[in-house]
Amino acid sequence: MPTKKSKLKVFSLGGLDEIGKNMTVLEYANDIIIVDCGVAFPQDDMLGIDLVIPDFSYLQKNRQKVKGIILTHGHEDHIGSIPYFLRELNAPIYGTKLTLGLVDNKLKEHNLLGVAETHCKGPSDKFKLGNNFTVELIKTTHSIADSVAVAIKTPVGMVIHSGDFKVDYTPISGESINLQRFAQLGMEGVLLFMCESTNVDQPGYTMSERSVGIIFESIFDQSPNQRIMIATFSSNIHRIQQVINSAVKHDRKVLILGRSMINAVTTATELGYLVIPDNIIIEASEVRNYTDAELAIITTGSQGEPMAALSRMASSEHRQIEIKPGDKVIISASPIPGNEKTISRVINELMRRGADVIYEGLMDVHVSGHAKQEEIKLLHALIKPKFLMPIHGEYRHLKQHKELAVSIGMNKDDVFVMTNGDVLELTDSTAAMGTPVQSGQVLVDGLGVGDVGSAVLRDRKHLAQDGLMVVVAGICLEGGRCVIVAGPDIISRGFVYVKESEELIEEAKEVARKAFYFCDDKRITEWNYIRNIIREHLKNYLWQKTKRNPMILPIIMEL
Amino acid sequence: MPTKKSKLKVFSLGGLDEIGKNMTVLEYANDIIIVDCGVAFPQDDMLGIDLVIPDFSYLQKNRQKVKGIILTHGHEDHIGSIPYFLRELNAPIYGTKLTLGLVDNKLKEHNLLGVAETHCKGPSDKFKLGNNFTVELIKTTHSIADSVAVAIKTPVGMVIHSGDFKVDYTPISGESINLQRFAQLGMEGVLLFMCESTNVDQPGYTMSERSVGIIFESIFDQSPNQRIMIATFSSNIHRIQQVINSAVKHDRKVLILGRSMINAVTTATELGYLVIPDNIIIEASEVRNYTDAELAIITTGSQGEPMAALSRMASSEHRQIEIKPGDKVIISASPIPGNEKTISRVINELMRRGADVIYEGLMDVHVSGHAKQEEIKLLHALIKPKFLMPIHGEYRHLKQHKELAVSIGMNKDDVFVMTNGDVLELTDSTAAMGTPVQSGQVLVDGLGVGDVGSAVLRDRKHLAQDGLMVVVAGICLEGGRCVIVAGPDIISRGFVYVKESEELIEEAKEVARKAFYFCDDKRITEWNYIRNIIREHLKNYLWQKTKRNPMILPIIMEL
Repeated sequence: MPTKKSKLKVFSLGGLDEIGKNMTVLEYANDIIIVDCGVAFPQDDMLGIDLVIPDFSYLQKNRQKVKGIILTHGHEDHIGSIPYFLRELNAPIYGTKLTLGLVDNKLKEHNLLGVAETHCKGPSDKFKLGNNFTVELIKTTHSIADSVAVAIKTPVGMVIHSGDFKVDYTPISGESINLQRFAQLGMEGVLLFMCESTNVDQPGYTMSERSVGIIFESIFDQSPNQRIMIATFSSNIHRIQQVINSAVKHDRKVLILGRSMINAVTTATELGYLVIPDNIIIEASEVRNYTDAELAIITTGSQGEPMAALSRMASSEHRQIEIKPGDKVIISASPIPGNEKTISRVINELMRRGADVIYEGLMDVHVSGHAKQEEIKLLHALIKPKFLMPIHGEYRHLKQHKELAVSIGMNKDDVFVMTNGDVLELTDSTAAMGTPVQSGQVLVDGLGVGDVGSAVLRDRKHLAQDGLMVVVAGICLEGGRCVIVAGPDIISRGFVYVKESEELIEEAKEVARKAFYFCDDKRITEWNYIRNIIREHLKNYLWQKTKRNPMILPIIMEL
Repeated sequence: MPTKKSKLKVFSLGGLDEIGKNMTVLEYANDIIIVDCGVAFPQDDMLGIDLVIPDFSYLQKNRQKVKGIILTHGHEDHIGSIPYFLRELNAPIYGTKLTLGLVDNKLKEHNLLGVAETHCKGPSDKFKLGNNFTVELIKTTHSIADSVAVAIKTPVGMVIHSGDFKVDYTPISGESINLQRFAQLGMEGVLLFMCESTNVDQPGYTMSERSVGIIFESIFDQSPNQRIMIATFSSNIHRIQQVINSAVKHDRKVLILGRSMINAVTTATELGYLVIPDNIIIEASEVRNYTDAELAIITTGSQGEPMAALSRMASSEHRQIEIKPGDKVIISASPIPGNEKTISRVINELMRRGADVIYEGLMDVHVSGHAKQEEIKLLHALIKPKFLMPIHGEYRHLKQHKELAVSIGMNKDDVFVMTNGDVLELTDSTAAMGTPVQSGQVLVDGLGVGDVGSAVLRDRKHLAQDGLMVVVAGICLEGGRCVIVAGPDIISRGFVYVKESEELIEEAKEVARKAFYFCDDKRITEWNYIRNIIREHLKNYLWQKTKRNPMILPIIMEL
């Protein structure tokens, strides 16, 4: 039972470099609510890993407390963990129409449709979760339609979670971020503001999404006879709407390429977020019926993903569309850090095929979905929270957010730069760090959730670096002696080009044989010990000969 | 013998995404000269590879023609292949003092000192190579001291190779790029200009190296009590000089950290390129004798390299220096594309330890060493070549360079955007593409040069992705039947966490056993065929169970 002495606990779970991005938890007495349930994308050294999800242990231990999940918007890093969550726990899911539409697509893929209650809420709707929380969604603007911030009334005071946002006064949907409501709540008093920090290192304002449409228009105007292709994120419905608007205006048909793009366009159209006149969308098979001047193509692959439609077109591996000289290709996206090289390679390939490629840096064909410094200051000025927890950023961003908050008048002791698992405990007048909860990352590889840990990754890294050498021999133990009955044979993969290294392999067999004799001489008959000796002898030999260190797997069959 | 009809051939070897960076070849009749002999750094998918060097086949076939190597400056991508070159071929090496000093360091490491003649040449020196080439070095400015362009007088006309350059009117060495000489040669007539393109996509001018020193000064001024650390490239002698100047001015001792930094500072000091007052440099062991206010540290690791001093300090793995709250760390470098994430991670770690980190974007603590658009136009305007070959850039840069050249009046047919191995053939009035020569990349892994090819890399990639499963069994063939005498046993690495997957491994053994029975039933006795059947059965089983695709190695021992 809640008592007067209960404190509000706030913490983040999941995430890799970025903190507080994938999942935020609020706990008061017997109630827990969750804001967002997303995935992180594996780091370079997480070889073979598909996704990274939060560690749900704390929530599993407190499963009876969990009253609901509130989603701020439909990006993967905010909704992608829902299927994994639902395999362990259950809770009703609250979100706006498009967000829930995208969640439904995801649950369908995982055969989980109907497993959890979903409740569609409009911005400004209020609803109660448990005994202690009243939630209100507040309209924001971001690079996906239907994004919201979350205002949570708790027994100790009001908490606002910004979600991802920018301040766009002229969004494509017509409806701007609800600054008035932030101001109103601010005047009533906000205990804690959790505010995103993605672009906090950038001065000024992020441009309106509409500014990209103006550039698209000028490109369409200047390219009356070229086929125009635009690559962007499939979730950026407003960007897609602007391409379609330009295409309609210039009497061009539109082809949609890429599975995720087709899914997103279908869902957004069904739900009314994308307005496409009849007879505009065509199929790939119809392309031949139109001239270049009559075509626009919207495609996936803006991050240079090798399997996406744009990369496949660039490398002539696309079944339906081939790049040809004169094509105008617009890459309407920024590289996500880490993707710079792959995007660059796709641009080179497109240009080699004669395409005219326009990317950020050449023209303003992309704007960010995240607030820069002046927009963040604006929300601070409207909300004037007692305490601030910067979220959604690497540590350096959170620290810069703290500096920004201090520069506009906050007390530095009222700003909490935390990491995942850190717990902030609040009363109606105080905030302090409490005992951390179990947090961390769970790796998803194929169907396996959490079965790939650091030992498996270490092996993959070792194998990736220098490959593998298997030494196999059949042994008889006779009167305490080791007798080689078959082998030793050597099989290597990813180590050297075997045909040109026959001598090395033959010598390696000899080294293995001598290691057996050595063991026999010393009367060593313990298999593990013998294996270690073979491994050490071979390792030294191979390093001396090649300065490489393949994984060595000695296999002994006792006969 | 050269005849009147000989043409000048010009082509590039080596390189990956960047074209014409590592090695340029000029051939006329019986003479070949080479400009630069550098390495490329492996791409992400070249697992385990250390370096990428040019394919020297064409030069080996024409070894008697090779008259010399001219080096433009001492960066790895211009000198790093020399040890590999000298194992296959020999030729005298020409370069400026610092460049040859760095080459000597390299040859020492490879035990190749003295193998090739080296000739130290000052800017403006002229020297003859073979019967057909007269070479002159022209002073330029770049992010390493002693860089030059190369003017080559050939029987068909003058060729100028820019090397890497920027137009710095106030370089730290005092001597600026020799624009007058470019103008003079231009007035005499230049047949071909090979010009670098690294920053051709950036408008305006690159700032002077000196502007960084002014920022350093203001940071030193504003941080009187903090320990100051600066991470930069070890080859950027002028950057290092400016740090030392500020340290001297602010009565700070200087500690040099990182092997390559210590080597570069030693060589540059010995050769007079770095001027350090006595009693300024201290050893790590002496740090304890000084307060933070009396110390400046110059370190490697500006690219976030995990083994470099800065990363090790950031992760508390450095033997001598630990980051502490209040330390001021300046990262005086731009991320080389592909390194953004690792640098970002080091910055986060430094900040977590309480350091105040300044990096490009926050303050102008770095300038590029490469010319931007206006500087490139300036050289074009001075040289006014008949033909242009853009070099040093990805394809998109070369193409943009062509557009830039056309925008300032060149005929587009006189600009040749080429790739490695493409040959430009020139007479005194014409230029046209000839038959390509063998080019390509040779991978260096440990001591192995060229023994890792696409098959080995494919295996490493496969192993990295999903690991490995070895199935081993001892078999007797008796009367055309397969009898399993030992096993099947299974060993996996990098696939699943074995302790939690015992059931899967047991079932996999069963699948292997059934595959043997299947072969036996069908009277299949060919080992390769049996191995393939086992592999296929297991592959299907594992994919269905895990959606993973480890490398499967069936090993059969015939007993």
